[in-house]
Amino acid sequence: MSGPAILEAALYAEDLDAAEAFYAGVLGLEVVLRKEGAHIFFRCAGAILLVFDPRATENQSGGALPVPPHGAQGAGHLCLAASGAEIDRWRARLEAVGIAIEADFRWPNGARSLYLRDPAGNSLEFAEPRLWFDGKD
Amino acid sequence: MSGPAILEAALYAEDLDAAEAFYAGVLGLEVVLRKEGAHIFFRCAGAILLVFDPRATENQSGGALPVPPHGAQGAGHLCLAASGAEIDRWRARLEAVGIAIEADFRWPNGARSLYLRDPAGNSLEFAEPRLWFDGKD
Repeated sequence: MSGPAILEAALYAEDLDAAEAFYAGVLGLEVVLRKEGAHIFFRCAGAILLVFDPRATENQSGGALPVPPHGAQGAGHLCLAASGAEIDRWRARLEAVGIAIEADFRWPNGARSLYLRDPAGNSLEFAEPRLWFDGKD
Repeated sequence: MSGPAILEAALYAEDLDAAEAFYAGVLGLEVVLRKEGAHIFFRCAGAILLVFDPRATENQSGGALPVPPHGAQGAGHLCLAASGAEIDRWRARLEAVGIAIEADFRWPNGARSLYLRDPAGNSLEFAEPRLWFDGKD
């Protein structure tokens, strides 16, 4: 391994209730922090998934801390690590609650990816780490 | 730790040359893959930072694999893990090449964050992992 680890990745969603219902309720991620009307953060192993309402973060200023503004529109992308057996279980759980599977295929190196949309339309992927890291599941 | 690990986080940039000059040239991240006019991927410890040209990924279809489209406009956000001493070194390296430090402060729990912009205007942060994970540096 080389390079610094990713500590936080960000997605954007205007409907934070829908984001919580999906990431916590369906995917089972632990909610670390929620600020009403601004953001909701989830634990992903050793990192944090940040889901921001861009209408809040684009204009943040004047708070107690000088947190710089940011905020994107359109479909972002996040990929979570999963073994092949875990991808089977994610697929079953998603289909059980009526979430469409957008794609499920193997890359040229044999690693499998499963794609779906979060409620805000972001492209969420579950992929076998051997997509990028030889010798992993 | 709980929840699946983040395998890939994504940012968007129309100028992939500038992204490579910054993430590889200044930050020293290893380039894993570059597809001209489409994307450039970097290794971040056990995960991958994906930088996509949204003009390419918004319209991807008809390729050999059914990779779903995505693409965002506006400033995204990514945070990389760093100890306090590493943040000092990042700050010195950034200032040495003329990149402005946008903020450098401590959160209420004492963890330090350093903020700057990548060439596309994305908000990049270096933060001490104890911001979220007790007992870490």
